[in-house]
Amino acid sequence: MRKISSPKVFQAEMRKLRERAKTIGFVPTMGALHDGHLALVRRARRENDIVAVSIFVNPAQFGPKEDFKRYPRTIGRDEKLLKNLKVDYLFHPTPKAMYPDSYALKISMGSPWVKDRLRKKFFPLLENLCGKYRPGHFEGVMAIVAKLLVLAQCHRTYFGQKDYQQAILIRRMIEDLHFDVIMKVLPTVRESDGLAMSSRNRYLSGDERRRAVALSRTLFWLRGQVRSGTRNILWLKREAARRLKPAVDKIQYFDIVDPQSLASLRRWQTEMVVLTACFVGKTRLIDNVTIKVKNQKS
Amino acid sequence: MRKISSPKVFQAEMRKLRERAKTIGFVPTMGALHDGHLALVRRARRENDIVAVSIFVNPAQFGPKEDFKRYPRTIGRDEKLLKNLKVDYLFHPTPKAMYPDSYALKISMGSPWVKDRLRKKFFPLLENLCGKYRPGHFEGVMAIVAKLLVLAQCHRTYFGQKDYQQAILIRRMIEDLHFDVIMKVLPTVRESDGLAMSSRNRYLSGDERRRAVALSRTLFWLRGQVRSGTRNILWLKREAARRLKPAVDKIQYFDIVDPQSLASLRRWQTEMVVLTACFVGKTRLIDNVTIKVKNQKS
Repeated sequence: MRKISSPKVFQAEMRKLRERAKTIGFVPTMGALHDGHLALVRRARRENDIVAVSIFVNPAQFGPKEDFKRYPRTIGRDEKLLKNLKVDYLFHPTPKAMYPDSYALKISMGSPWVKDRLRKKFFPLLENLCGKYRPGHFEGVMAIVAKLLVLAQCHRTYFGQKDYQQAILIRRMIEDLHFDVIMKVLPTVRESDGLAMSSRNRYLSGDERRRAVALSRTLFWLRGQVRSGTRNILWLKREAARRLKPAVDKIQYFDIVDPQSLASLRRWQTEMVVLTACFVGKTRLIDNVTIKVKNQKS
Repeated sequence: MRKISSPKVFQAEMRKLRERAKTIGFVPTMGALHDGHLALVRRARRENDIVAVSIFVNPAQFGPKEDFKRYPRTIGRDEKLLKNLKVDYLFHPTPKAMYPDSYALKISMGSPWVKDRLRKKFFPLLENLCGKYRPGHFEGVMAIVAKLLVLAQCHRTYFGQKDYQQAILIRRMIEDLHFDVIMKVLPTVRESDGLAMSSRNRYLSGDERRRAVALSRTLFWLRGQVRSGTRNILWLKREAARRLKPAVDKIQYFDIVDPQSLASLRRWQTEMVVLTACFVGKTRLIDNVTIKVKNQKS
């Protein structure tokens, strides 16, 4: 595995590989790797000649009061894991290399030029759910992913479904900028009790870890209800919140939305996503499940 | 010359050329070609194996009350001119292909994450001069150029200095997104009396055309003054406006700025740019000159 910190060198290396007609699979991460990341890397390994992974804790996607400084950095361990999976390139730039003092770009959604009809349609993408509680977060995510895709020149790129809203926004950006890349979103990998894997799980104390299972448990419960015929979305939301509340310290949001627009639903439809963000102790956890049912009661 | 309207086909074609190690020069235009455009094309022809030109009147860079609908479209004539210059590819997409209904992306400057110090430094780029009078214009320009660069995968891209602020912003965007492309900005091409070539010059009546020469004449006068030792920037601005006023119908702005930040100057410095936007009749014209002098009176 070759480790590269310079954006220009990484880009030149990827360009050479493309010119030799190699296919490149790219997995952008913030490091502190867990089995969710490794599932992406394994898939990339199966589907491409060359696998490149980036590890970069992106300052632009953290709010001023968020955990940028204490976000776990475990580069030595991460490197070993990636070597074991036969990754070819590890791109590990400095913040200064990605955001020099001259940096000023902002990538967002909802061009002022886009007609009102469309604006209404697409604003939920950026402004609902995590977008509401983490202003600037997704702009930071979109900018870093755009930058990384321009550098990596990859054929395929891999993301996890745990960050559902992020995946939807990145897909939108990839299409809008015409990036010539196949984006794959792989299912959330979970601990044996159902907790979604996350680099932030290591913030949890023993007690918090036990309580954190309430997120996935509630989401699975709700999906089970819909699958067995419950159609009252508003009741499901209320009931889910009632079940979550005793376990977590704060429910930031719990919502059932349209899988594409992320607009909040008041009525049942055949495809839905249920998403939640909760604080357990001081740790903010997110999770989601997709629901797809036939158009009739079972 | 091969004419392509599909973005995907254009991108696939350019990719094949890159894989065959051909160098690609790309000239993005809105058509209604004049000698300014053709100078860019000729330079691209000299410096690259393959030359691609795009003609696309980009709706996203026109304000709601601007001249998008009446902007000159002379595709038949343009095609002949480009064929004569041995252009290899003409990319001529439809607005629908570049902006499908799902399109929602916005590219701007001044990330909320960028520190205040930097924000102050870079906001003039987007918000002074044309940015002040054409809200959304440069966002539209940056978006289309980013999209076109992702499609064209070119080694070199060519712009005219007449659109000075545009060139500065695009250079910023290219650097911030790490586009692997050399951007060349070529000098403004002028009519024999000094008027900067522009597709919009054809809007001018005979009388307006005669009066329009006042823009370049005033800019050249100001440059001459600085070269012969005048250092009073505020006086120069006032005096230039006094000279422009009788000829044009409205001075939208006339300013002397820093070449990089575009911040308005109150004091002389060795490198400066003088920019103006005026209405002659109903036609909005822009022009600029760069000034570079030694650090002493001559």
